[in-house]
Amino acid sequence: MAKTVHYRYEEMKRLCEDAFLKFGFSKEEVDVITDVLLMADLYGINSHGVQRLVRYHKCIANGMIQVHAQPEVLFETPVSAVIDAHRGMGQVVSVMAMKKAIEKAKQSGIAMVSVRDSNHYGIAGYYAKMAADEGLIGISVTNTAAIMVPTFSRKAMLGSDPIAVAMPADPYPFFFDASTTVVTRGKLELYNKLEKPMPEGWAVDENGVPTDCAPHVLKCIDEKQGGGILPLGGSTEQLGSHKGYGYAMLCEIFSAIVSLGLTSNHTYENGHCGICHGFAAIDPAIFGDPAAIRAHFSEYLKELRESPKAAGHDRIYTHGEKEIEACEDRLKNGWDVNINTVVEMKNLCDYLGMDYKEYLGDVDFSDASKNLYVQTLGGK
Amino acid sequence: MAKTVHYRYEEMKRLCEDAFLKFGFSKEEVDVITDVLLMADLYGINSHGVQRLVRYHKCIANGMIQVHAQPEVLFETPVSAVIDAHRGMGQVVSVMAMKKAIEKAKQSGIAMVSVRDSNHYGIAGYYAKMAADEGLIGISVTNTAAIMVPTFSRKAMLGSDPIAVAMPADPYPFFFDASTTVVTRGKLELYNKLEKPMPEGWAVDENGVPTDCAPHVLKCIDEKQGGGILPLGGSTEQLGSHKGYGYAMLCEIFSAIVSLGLTSNHTYENGHCGICHGFAAIDPAIFGDPAAIRAHFSEYLKELRESPKAAGHDRIYTHGEKEIEACEDRLKNGWDVNINTVVEMKNLCDYLGMDYKEYLGDVDFSDASKNLYVQTLGGK
Repeated sequence: MAKTVHYRYEEMKRLCEDAFLKFGFSKEEVDVITDVLLMADLYGINSHGVQRLVRYHKCIANGMIQVHAQPEVLFETPVSAVIDAHRGMGQVVSVMAMKKAIEKAKQSGIAMVSVRDSNHYGIAGYYAKMAADEGLIGISVTNTAAIMVPTFSRKAMLGSDPIAVAMPADPYPFFFDASTTVVTRGKLELYNKLEKPMPEGWAVDENGVPTDCAPHVLKCIDEKQGGGILPLGGSTEQLGSHKGYGYAMLCEIFSAIVSLGLTSNHTYENGHCGICHGFAAIDPAIFGDPAAIRAHFSEYLKELRESPKAAGHDRIYTHGEKEIEACEDRLKNGWDVNINTVVEMKNLCDYLGMDYKEYLGDVDFSDASKNLYVQTLGGK
Repeated sequence: MAKTVHYRYEEMKRLCEDAFLKFGFSKEEVDVITDVLLMADLYGINSHGVQRLVRYHKCIANGMIQVHAQPEVLFETPVSAVIDAHRGMGQVVSVMAMKKAIEKAKQSGIAMVSVRDSNHYGIAGYYAKMAADEGLIGISVTNTAAIMVPTFSRKAMLGSDPIAVAMPADPYPFFFDASTTVVTRGKLELYNKLEKPMPEGWAVDENGVPTDCAPHVLKCIDEKQGGGILPLGGSTEQLGSHKGYGYAMLCEIFSAIVSLGLTSNHTYENGHCGICHGFAAIDPAIFGDPAAIRAHFSEYLKELRESPKAAGHDRIYTHGEKEIEACEDRLKNGWDVNINTVVEMKNLCDYLGMDYKEYLGDVDFSDASKNLYVQTLGGK
């Protein structure tokens, strides 16, 4: 069983801020990056929080992420924009893009913004929530490294391709953020660090045959020699594999296709990431009275939570509840970080000339894995 | 094994046209209804074609569908509209609504139209395809009778809630149309007619316990006493049950919530259907050159089809291919209709005073099931 170290929000925040400042980002950019990263940890989405620092570290170090890139608006209408991130940090261009979508939606009622040639943008839901915080319906999608094997294929051709939607409601907003694969790559990374076999139905190897070995699948994905994660719905049409594959197509369309960017099967090649994002903001007022719509929605969410429970269960969640509860708990009490992730954070400090003990404390690294699969991120 | 009768497109078309004329619809409305219904059969989506005539028959007979209803536009902006169907035929108001979305999208770039107080609208994809036929991206969603059990619940609170998206491409358009449940109610209806046990992972009974008995689940759904179909992703979060549940929420939001209509858990009560639909049309020109976007998309679809096959498979489909091939075949050769559906068509003819032999020929009904579960459709 892998060991963990307990950290508080303020500690992780200081580490992220100082590290990204050292990398050369402006204070404003650092605030954005830190906020996106740590919202994942606060929301209990461990796979996308500090666990991912190693990816940003490696990708900045090898030049895949261009620290000083300036996003460029290529095309614009009152309801849309296409932005070229010019290989910049995904979080920075994405906050800019969603702000633009929100601004346009407030004027025109709806807006869509598509971004090309970007990098990993963290959790999709962050950007959807930006719109919901302004009283709008927010949608955020992205493509990623090729990781999803289409139904009946043995090669990853689509990304984990999450769809996130957020909408105002009481007492909690609706917050849905999920990959269109059965699970994300982040979950495989966690199983790799935990050195545990994966549950059945998550992934296939280079021959399209089911496997429970996380490091092997990560290696397959990185080397682009076949193998990957299954679409939501699994490997056959009987349980809806073609559906997860179809939802992923929607992500590719609104990120890479309309922006003329790279589809997932062409990302992370020759040191170039090139992934694309899509954002939409919709003002409920285009359908009538926003307060009435919000009340109607809140009532439905309440009915869902109060509906009769299945045998063996005592609670039904609406989307976003778990995240809000995790956030309250973690802001107050902090959370456990896997020792292998702590090693990665130490390496980051060493790389940047920061004294790791000032951030991570006196850590006993003897429990860290000796033969962890180290991801290449296709970015050598 | 249930017997079938072979029919040709023209035969089924004449039956539908004459039946809906007899019900009192105008010629224009009959053309719409017939086209939507038979496109399902032509596309190989048997569950939503003439197999569904019995539902329209029953719902018109019991007044749930108001033949002479006039849809009313309640609210309108340059990018949106909300329409009250006033209990009319779903196909009629939906074609009107998508035409409005297309017209507005051609002016404004994007448009969304939401419809409330409607009835079953057939296959979601029909309306998405209307937009794609005009060079736009089309999206169509609907809620339905409560049929989907939320994760950890034992009561159906959401619909089968399909999401359909169509987009121009060469040589075939992209055409995705899928329920957010593992399977649709139509699939259960087919298993009921075939008198076969359902595959594992499709449905739960009134206690939230898995079951393979289609008639029992249909009865559970009709009686609203618990039980239903599982979200895409199954019954646990491990394979993504919360994701199918989340996608269904998107359908409820853009159909019932923004139109202030009935959410699925309140539809089909006291002889009132009340289901709601949502439509969107997006002009690719808001992102740049539509021809370049179409070419980029077509190339990606080609790459997907040509990607390496999993062991035991020799073809990878992109969404819409199977439908186009089925359509070519069925337009030319006709298709097999289950004998129990033929009985329903005979009953329809009898009800309307039409000589069934003129439409269905000389059928041997001795193979029809004697103890088929007959759906009440919540519409007594």
